[in-house]
This record gives sequence, structure tokens and C-alpha cells, in this order.
Amino acid sequence: MCDANAYLYENGQEELIMESVDKVVSKHSKVYLENIYGFRKTFEGRIKELLLMDHRIILENFPHKQEL
Amino acid sequence: MCDANAYLYENGQEELIMESVDKVVSKHSKVYLENIYGFRKTFEGRIKELLLMDHRIILENFPHKQEL
Repeated sequence: MCDANAYLYENGQEELIMESVDKVVSKHSKVYLENIYGFRKTFEGRIKELLLMDHRIILENFPHKQEL
Repeated sequence: MCDANAYLYENGQEELIMESVDKVVSKHSKVYLENIYGFRKTFEGRIKELLLMDHRIILENFPHKQEL
């Protein structure tokens, strides 16, 4: 199974936001996540990094929001 | 093996740009790809979509470039 866990990177820390993610769509300022069980989440931000062999997707808020 | 192939989406078509991708880093306007054999490529654009169970990463140029 090649699903991955999605984490939000913020202030040097990672928070798990969804497990077993299959599909990710990044559109405008949103990231749409869907896992292998059909659960969905929408996240404001962008895809920062993928580590597929480690089953990891790292998301982040937009830089201008982090600076506020 | 949970690597994926990276495709560039442009004008409704997909072009394979790298096979067996493991790591992807999206920073500023660039996407850095590294595959399981250690080969690297840098791409101008962003991560559009992931279909992990299908082993697919879809990249695209920035919208303003597509409109030119």
C-alpha cells in the first residue's frame, strides 16, 4: 500500500492531519486530501514536500501567513 | 516500492519527466525531484496533484505562464 500520512509543518514542528492519504489536489490556495477509506479534508495552504518511500506528505500554510 | 512517476501537465496532456521519484521539495517557484536511484531534476512550477496508489505525481507550470 502506497498511501502516505499528511503532516502540517508549522514553526519547525509537524502535526499529523490525515492518515493513509491516497489523493491530493492543490488548487488555488487550497489542498484537497482524500484517504484510502474515502475520507476527505480540505486544507488552506500548499504541498511543501513529499517523502514517498517514508510515506510522508508535508503541507504548510502560505509563507505570508507564517510571518504574521 | 512506493516511488512514483512525475508528470508535467500542460495543455490537457501529461508528459513523463521523471520515473521512480522518492523525494519532492517545493520551494519558492521551484520543484526539486529526486528519484530512488539518486538522480535529481529541478523544475519550474508547482505540485498540482498526487495519486499515490497509482504512483503518480502531477506537476504544472504556474498558471500565469500557461496563459501566455
